[in-house]
Amino acid sequence: MTAPEHPTALTVLVLPGIGEIVPGDDLPDLIARAAEAGDVRPGDILAVTSKIVSKAEGRIRTAADREQAITDETVRVVATREHPGGVTRIVENRLGLVMAAAGVDASNTADGTVLLLPLDPDASAAAIRAAVEARIGAPVGVVITDTAGRAWREGQTDIAIGASGVRLLDDLRGGRDASGKLLEVTAPAVGDEIAAAADLVKGKSSGMPVAVIRGMARLLDAAAPGGRQLVRRAEEDMFYLGHREARAEGHAAGYAEGLAAGRAAAAGASENS
Amino acid sequence: MTAPEHPTALTVLVLPGIGEIVPGDDLPDLIARAAEAGDVRPGDILAVTSKIVSKAEGRIRTAADREQAITDETVRVVATREHPGGVTRIVENRLGLVMAAAGVDASNTADGTVLLLPLDPDASAAAIRAAVEARIGAPVGVVITDTAGRAWREGQTDIAIGASGVRLLDDLRGGRDASGKLLEVTAPAVGDEIAAAADLVKGKSSGMPVAVIRGMARLLDAAAPGGRQLVRRAEEDMFYLGHREARAEGHAAGYAEGLAAGRAAAAGASENS
Repeated sequence: MTAPEHPTALTVLVLPGIGEIVPGDDLPDLIARAAEAGDVRPGDILAVTSKIVSKAEGRIRTAADREQAITDETVRVVATREHPGGVTRIVENRLGLVMAAAGVDASNTADGTVLLLPLDPDASAAAIRAAVEARIGAPVGVVITDTAGRAWREGQTDIAIGASGVRLLDDLRGGRDASGKLLEVTAPAVGDEIAAAADLVKGKSSGMPVAVIRGMARLLDAAAPGGRQLVRRAEEDMFYLGHREARAEGHAAGYAEGLAAGRAAAAGASENS
Repeated sequence: MTAPEHPTALTVLVLPGIGEIVPGDDLPDLIARAAEAGDVRPGDILAVTSKIVSKAEGRIRTAADREQAITDETVRVVATREHPGGVTRIVENRLGLVMAAAGVDASNTADGTVLLLPLDPDASAAAIRAAVEARIGAPVGVVITDTAGRAWREGQTDIAIGASGVRLLDDLRGGRDASGKLLEVTAPAVGDEIAAAADLVKGKSSGMPVAVIRGMARLLDAAAPGGRQLVRRAEEDMFYLGHREARAEGHAAGYAEGLAAGRAAAAGASENS
């Protein structure tokens, strides 16, 4: 395996012409028409904000049902933190993503409502890709993006939660660096980097939900796996639980063992006295 | 505060003309000359791979001293994991960054050597910015980037570890979304997103250590704080320790408490018998 070619230029454009999305909208068709009108080209990658996918799918609940919606989306609670307004739950959700509030979000939604993540972002990406490719007659990639917090770092970045036709992990393991050395652990998460680049132009409050990334055609791969490729399996994660939660778990187990040992030691001492 | 303007296009270019860097090189001058030759424009942001900063600073150790170099760079061990080749240490380093091996790296370095992170990436960014601005006669931003793994997600992304003249955190708290709702917790880590976009063109093995980001002039801010702006304070972090480490800490404390309680209970029972 040789080191892959890198482009010397990358362009990120917003795709105009996507209006407000409502439940039942044919999002693949809307994006395909905008792609054709917006001169999307062979090898382009479309980064689509998950929010419009969720809206088209009708993944909307009332704000009053927010806590129940989070519970419904949760596979496993990773950490919780109390604050004046309530409790923030960092959880692993249906999609394997570790996110605050399971990705349930109230920004850029109608008043009094919250939005859940798309049911199957890879399938949504595949449908959008098929519609765009049929309309422009050339291969493209599609990435579904969402905004996530991180451990250890302030602020949020956009990440790739689903994809079709594009490699999200650029596995260089086995390749060589510029000085010929083996790149043993290097696997750039290019899907997340594409989502991040797209966020720089899409923004959070701009009503521009789709970006076009031009210059990364080398990542196109019709058979590439989807968003799960960037999800670390929980059992391989060194941050499976929050610090406080893991400490509490250890404390309970240690206390029970200590209690038994203390009783046994005292009983032994008593017998020997 | 109103929602900020977003560009409708972003371009990322590699800056040619930066050769192999060796200790003692005047990196600011080399980059400034390349910027002039490469048509860097007012408002551009230069993303500079930390590796060339480290090389210019002579932050090089022999591979045999790698473990000691990691120890020297470590402020706090966050998690460790044994593997067939040894032990990986995830630590908080001098710069507040939580990274595997404290950011000490053997890729793209001379055989038998490892590279430590720059001593003061913000100062390095300031020196590069001053040299570039003096040469092209216009304001630019500089971000120093490095590659980091993440909790919960596979692969690595590039992040901003130092900066000068550019805002790394785009604090939208207090702003409003497209539907007029307050954006309560939204603060995009645009510094990390710029680093990620730059990595897509710089790559890991391509000998292209500097990228130019065009279209983000709105983030230029001569008084912006540096890389620490994106570092979450350890005491505010829910993932202060790895799961196993936190569990062990809790287990030890719980065991000691349980042991004392068990002895006291047994002693009480013995006195009462």
